[in-house]
Amino acid sequence: MVGQRQTVAFLGPKASYTHQATLECFDESVYDFAPQISIEDVFQAVQSDAAHRGVVPFENSTNGSVVFTLDLFADLPNRYPDILVCGEVYIGVNHCLLGHAQKLAVTVSSGSGSPESSGRATPTTSAPNPAVPRTVPLMDLKHVKKLYSHPQAWGQCKTFLSGYLKGVERQDVSSTSKAAELVAQDTGGTSAAISSRIAAKIHHLDLLASGIEDFPDNTTRFFVLRKASADASAQSSDSENHIDTNMDEDMSRYKTLVSFTVDHNDPGALAESLAVFKPYKLNLTSINARPSGIVPWNYIFFVEIKGRRLEKDGAVNAALKDLGDTAKGWRWLGSWKSEL
Amino acid sequence: MVGQRQTVAFLGPKASYTHQATLECFDESVYDFAPQISIEDVFQAVQSDAAHRGVVPFENSTNGSVVFTLDLFADLPNRYPDILVCGEVYIGVNHCLLGHAQKLAVTVSSGSGSPESSGRATPTTSAPNPAVPRTVPLMDLKHVKKLYSHPQAWGQCKTFLSGYLKGVERQDVSSTSKAAELVAQDTGGTSAAISSRIAAKIHHLDLLASGIEDFPDNTTRFFVLRKASADASAQSSDSENHIDTNMDEDMSRYKTLVSFTVDHNDPGALAESLAVFKPYKLNLTSINARPSGIVPWNYIFFVEIKGRRLEKDGAVNAALKDLGDTAKGWRWLGSWKSEL
Repeated sequence: MVGQRQTVAFLGPKASYTHQATLECFDESVYDFAPQISIEDVFQAVQSDAAHRGVVPFENSTNGSVVFTLDLFADLPNRYPDILVCGEVYIGVNHCLLGHAQKLAVTVSSGSGSPESSGRATPTTSAPNPAVPRTVPLMDLKHVKKLYSHPQAWGQCKTFLSGYLKGVERQDVSSTSKAAELVAQDTGGTSAAISSRIAAKIHHLDLLASGIEDFPDNTTRFFVLRKASADASAQSSDSENHIDTNMDEDMSRYKTLVSFTVDHNDPGALAESLAVFKPYKLNLTSINARPSGIVPWNYIFFVEIKGRRLEKDGAVNAALKDLGDTAKGWRWLGSWKSEL
Repeated sequence: MVGQRQTVAFLGPKASYTHQATLECFDESVYDFAPQISIEDVFQAVQSDAAHRGVVPFENSTNGSVVFTLDLFADLPNRYPDILVCGEVYIGVNHCLLGHAQKLAVTVSSGSGSPESSGRATPTTSAPNPAVPRTVPLMDLKHVKKLYSHPQAWGQCKTFLSGYLKGVERQDVSSTSKAAELVAQDTGGTSAAISSRIAAKIHHLDLLASGIEDFPDNTTRFFVLRKASADASAQSSDSENHIDTNMDEDMSRYKTLVSFTVDHNDPGALAESLAVFKPYKLNLTSINARPSGIVPWNYIFFVEIKGRRLEKDGAVNAALKDLGDTAKGWRWLGSWKSEL
C-alpha cells in the first residue's frame, strides 16, 4: 500500500454535508476524494474496488432514515453483497436559505441575525417548538418565487418554510450543494436554495436566513463503508473494523447493523427474531422496516444493536445463530466503534 | 343524523389515488366529498369535526411507509389527540407516463402496449426484476425534458425512469393528479407526469407509457380516520370501529395500531416493549420508527398487531397494560377490520 494513494468515494458534490463528513474521517492529503452523483454510485465504487472506502448519509435526527441508503443495504438485486459498515460520523446540519438579496430591500450584513433585521415580524424562539420558526429571515423574502433543495431538507425546515415561504414552488435536486449551484445560475434572482453556509461562499450567494432547521441540534449520521474482502488493516483514520478476535474490548462501545426477513406466514417470527438479542444483553438501539421488494407487505427489517461481532464465538455470533432459527434470512452489515 | 349529509375529507385533488380509495369506502350519493391539499389538512378536518371521516395514504407495497402520515400519528405538538384509524383500503397503483405526444413521432394508439411500438428497443419482462423495466414507452420520449410527480412515485418507477428518462429534470408536486394538471398547462409540450390513467382522461393528456411501476402488484394502503369522541355507530360503509364489548369475533380478522416511546437510557426497553404482545398471541405484523422530535436519536415506534381492542379486558388491553410498564409512553391509534 505504501506509495499508492487510496480513494474515498462520497455522495457529492463538493461542499455537501457528506463531503464534510468525509473530511472528518479522512485526511485529504493522504486520500483521493471522489465525489459521486448518487448514494448508489458510492456503494458501486466500494463494491467494484474503485474506492477503498465510501461515505453515505444514513439518518437525520429530525427527518429519520435515508430510505435510499436502507434500500441499498437491503440489496434485493444482490449487487452489493460485500458492503459493510466500518465507521460512523455525526455532522451538525445548519441549513441556510441562500439566494440573491433583493436590490430594493434594506439588507443587513449576513451573519448579524438580529430579529430586527427581518422583513416580516414573527416572534423568535430558541426552544425546539416546531410550531414557531426558530429564526427570522435576514432580509425580505417576498421576491423568492422558487426554492431548490434536497428532498430531506424540506422535512427539516418545515416550520421556517410554512412561516415565511408558504406556497412557494419547490424543486427537488440531488443535493443541497447542487441547489446552491442552480440558484447561482439564476439571473432573474427570484430563486433560493436551502443549503449550507459553505455553499454560499463557494457559489457567491447571499445568506437570506441561517439556522432555519426546525430543531437546533439537527444532526445527520453518516456511515463509512468498506468491502468485506478488503484489507481491513490499511492505514486510515476511519474506525477500522474487521471481525475481531479480541474479546476484551468493552462491547457497548461498538454498534452492529443486521438485516433480516421473516416468513410472512409465521407472524410470530418478527417478535421472536427481535427477541434473540436480549438473552445476550445486546441492547437493541434502533429498528427500521422496508418493503422486501419481492412480495407486497413483506418487509426487510434492520436492527442496530450495541456490540461487536468477533471472529468466532462472542455474544453477537451467538445471537445471530439464534436469529438463523427464527428468521427466514439474515445478513451481518458490519460492526463499528460508536461515535455517540 | 337523518337528513344531514356527512363529510369525508381525503387527500386530493380529484382523480388522486386517495380519491379512488375514498370511493371504495364511501358512497358519493350519501357523503359530501371534501378533497384536501395536504395529509395534515385531512387530520385537521377530522380533529376539528369539519369532517366525519378522513382518508389518507399510509404505505405503499414498493416504497414503504408514508412518513408524513406517520409523523402526524406521532403528533409531537399534540394537535390531533383524538384521531383513530377505523378502516383500511388497498388500491392497486398503476402509474402511467402522461404528456404530449411528439408531433413528428410515429405514435400508436394508447393502450396497445406492444413492444414493437416503442421508439427505443429494450427487452420487456413481466417478472418483478427491478433491473429491467417491465414496460416500454408507447412512443418516443426524446422530447421529454421535465417530469412532474409526487415524491413517492419516483421511488415506485425507478427502473422505467433510469431506463428511459435518465437524467431528465424532476419536479416534486403535491400529488400525481396535480402533476398531470401542470403538464396539461405546458404549451411547449416537453413535460410529462407520472400519474394515473384517469388523470389522462380528465386533463386530456396522451398516454406515453403505462404500467411503469417497478412491481406489477404495486399497491397503496389507505387508512380511514375517525375522531375518538365521534359517534361510531353512524351509518356508513367504512369498517366502523369503536372499542367493542363483543369478544366472540375472530381477533385475527382485526388489526390494531399502537405507538410508543422508550427511555433512551434504558436500551433494553425497546426489546421488552416489542415482546409484550407475544404472551397474548397478538402477532406483530409491522413495525416503524420515526424520530421522536424531542431529543435527537430518540424514536417513536409504531407497531401493528393482529387483534382488536375491546372496551375492557381482552388480549389487546392486557398487552397495552404491560406496555405501560416497559415503555415511557404509548398510545392506541385504533383497531379496524383487516381487508387483506
